[in-house]
Amino acid sequence: MTDLSHLRADFPILHQQVCGHPLVYFDNAATSQKPRQVIDALVHYYEHDNANVHRGLHELSNRSTANFEAVRKKVARFIGAEHEEEIIFTRGSTEGINLVAQAWSAQHLKAGDVVVITGMEHHSDIVSWQLAVERCGATLKHVPVLDDGTLDISVLDSLLATEPVKMLACVHISNSLGTINPVKEICAKARARGVATLIDGAQAVGHVPVNVRDIGCDFYVFSGHKMCAPTGIGGLYGRLETLNSMQPWHGGGEMIETVTLERSTYKAAPHRFEAGTPDIAGVIGLGAAIDYLESVGLENIQAHGRELTLYAMEKLNALPGLRLLGPPAPADRASLAGFTLACAHPHDLVEFANTQGLALRGGHHCTQPLMKRFKAPGTTRASFYFYNTQAEVDRMIDILNQAIAFFS
Amino acid sequence: MTDLSHLRADFPILHQQVCGHPLVYFDNAATSQKPRQVIDALVHYYEHDNANVHRGLHELSNRSTANFEAVRKKVARFIGAEHEEEIIFTRGSTEGINLVAQAWSAQHLKAGDVVVITGMEHHSDIVSWQLAVERCGATLKHVPVLDDGTLDISVLDSLLATEPVKMLACVHISNSLGTINPVKEICAKARARGVATLIDGAQAVGHVPVNVRDIGCDFYVFSGHKMCAPTGIGGLYGRLETLNSMQPWHGGGEMIETVTLERSTYKAAPHRFEAGTPDIAGVIGLGAAIDYLESVGLENIQAHGRELTLYAMEKLNALPGLRLLGPPAPADRASLAGFTLACAHPHDLVEFANTQGLALRGGHHCTQPLMKRFKAPGTTRASFYFYNTQAEVDRMIDILNQAIAFFS
Repeated sequence: MTDLSHLRADFPILHQQVCGHPLVYFDNAATSQKPRQVIDALVHYYEHDNANVHRGLHELSNRSTANFEAVRKKVARFIGAEHEEEIIFTRGSTEGINLVAQAWSAQHLKAGDVVVITGMEHHSDIVSWQLAVERCGATLKHVPVLDDGTLDISVLDSLLATEPVKMLACVHISNSLGTINPVKEICAKARARGVATLIDGAQAVGHVPVNVRDIGCDFYVFSGHKMCAPTGIGGLYGRLETLNSMQPWHGGGEMIETVTLERSTYKAAPHRFEAGTPDIAGVIGLGAAIDYLESVGLENIQAHGRELTLYAMEKLNALPGLRLLGPPAPADRASLAGFTLACAHPHDLVEFANTQGLALRGGHHCTQPLMKRFKAPGTTRASFYFYNTQAEVDRMIDILNQAIAFFS
Repeated sequence: MTDLSHLRADFPILHQQVCGHPLVYFDNAATSQKPRQVIDALVHYYEHDNANVHRGLHELSNRSTANFEAVRKKVARFIGAEHEEEIIFTRGSTEGINLVAQAWSAQHLKAGDVVVITGMEHHSDIVSWQLAVERCGATLKHVPVLDDGTLDISVLDSLLATEPVKMLACVHISNSLGTINPVKEICAKARARGVATLIDGAQAVGHVPVNVRDIGCDFYVFSGHKMCAPTGIGGLYGRLETLNSMQPWHGGGEMIETVTLERSTYKAAPHRFEAGTPDIAGVIGLGAAIDYLESVGLENIQAHGRELTLYAMEKLNALPGLRLLGPPAPADRASLAGFTLACAHPHDLVEFANTQGLALRGGHHCTQPLMKRFKAPGTTRASFYFYNTQAEVDRMIDILNQAIAFFS
């Protein structure tokens, strides 16, 4: 198995006891931990360079601005964008989705139009588009999820062929099932019909190699905090011509050209969509996280995740009363396992695991429609990152065996 | 003079050379520096507690959630809110203003209505309301600024008496003039006419004691990064009944009660307005900043700012060709001084100052209409915080004298 366990030394948080046991952190799909290198980048920023960006002419402001804009270039390269101007800094995936659902829709969505989402979307994608279609009188339809946890692409084909679809929003990797959706194929189908596409990459960026040009989407969002970066920072990729076809979203400093009390004119992307003082330190930390992930290697991270998931799936499937959701083949899924256990509610199971130092997550994972689809009150989810080990999976299986004995 | 210079030891960034000179940081109205205590709080969070909030049942998530929600309570107390549910975490003042201009307006503003701002608003307040009135066909009017840098309250009275005003948005402390507006009196006038109020406290919170109940506003926004907290975090106060009268703003995790693919129901404030994973570390850092500021004492900070500004104004007014904008009496203004110099453009002056290690800011300060009002192409601004000293003001005066000699 790809062994990246030496990297654990970079993560101070992992070396602690919880309830008298060594912490096993398997809640990475909710948020990842941060390496020393990212924490140090924040400290260095605040101890040496902190100043507001863009509008200063003094040394600290110049340094902050240069470092801040260098990360925009780095993000563009990291996700395969053609232009750095296509990268807008946001608080995370949710804000990026809302920006598109509001600012793109204001220009491009009208009564009678259809927006298509999927049955495995996160609430961020469902609710944002529900609010968007409500505002203008459009309709929301969805592509259902098959029993094996993949999308029913035939329904997508039929919707694209028969409905006035204007936008298709789809998650890249399901945070509940682990399904890796064929986003390139999906975007090609949409594009062939002139339909815009938004891909939610919250579980993908920093976990698998992502190239937005290869995917062929119009918009792509991601969250820094799920890829070793600080909380509160993320990115939205948008095709430059699409971004510049959109009117501003928020008003404020940095997004304007001229302001009078009567009317204002606005900058082009990306600044048009970045009103106010941004999370400068968050951006610096995001840059440090990308450097770190690239030093590890995205291929290594992906391979390790696949191998660890295969190992975990085999062990989990052997447990009595355990039902694993999502695609059966590990090659089709990301490094997480969502499951139900006949003898215990997910919340009870997570609380039991916690007494043994194991951090799992239980509940609907912000995918209530998907839980309903699989007739589950919720699932227990173990989600891995490159710093997790086979020994930790063994420990989880031990704890689950104890739980089964306890709850049965 | 109130001497707080011993606190400089808490700010690592201040102890550096810029262009071979000790740094004098007078760009605090753009962003403040961070004490060791705030940086340490971030490091501690990432090294010990980092996990996603609210939805976990494991130890790290429980710790993060408890610490995160404790800061909400702390902010409520710090600005005098009645309920902690009245505090919504935002990226900063700009996002808070946009939240109100979009979500409040969607419910409460219609064609024919009038929104009143002032001639000394930051672009965030001007542009957000321009976008808001455009969306619904309302009208934007403004209260002009008098020659002494104060508001012409007679125009406010007249607008309130004769126009169908629904919202009055006003800056607490002008970031260009330093004017402290009589926001309590202004909000009382608005409230008497049933007009909602939004106060932009970006330059006020952490600089002067602020009590939103005493002010009597409906909404109040502030930025953490201007009060020793990390970049990327701030707060919006809203009266609870007003917040709960508003529909959601952004869709996402944490703001919902139930979601189906057809429709969703939403939580009450504050979570209704906090979609997605928040900037958890930023909130923790904001809490540490409040602790720090309270240990210094807001009264001490205010007194020091007043005294330093009085001192600076006397020295500045003695310089040839220098024109100081804003109220002539230091008691009426916050701790900043915006001025023009006959012999040099603000940009040239700021670049000159930088060669001497002095960080000033030059330009329109996101208040283009105000610059036009005072027939200035921009101003040079020196803005102070409690860690600045009289000796630093002396150094600035020295450098300005050199600049006058150089440019004349």
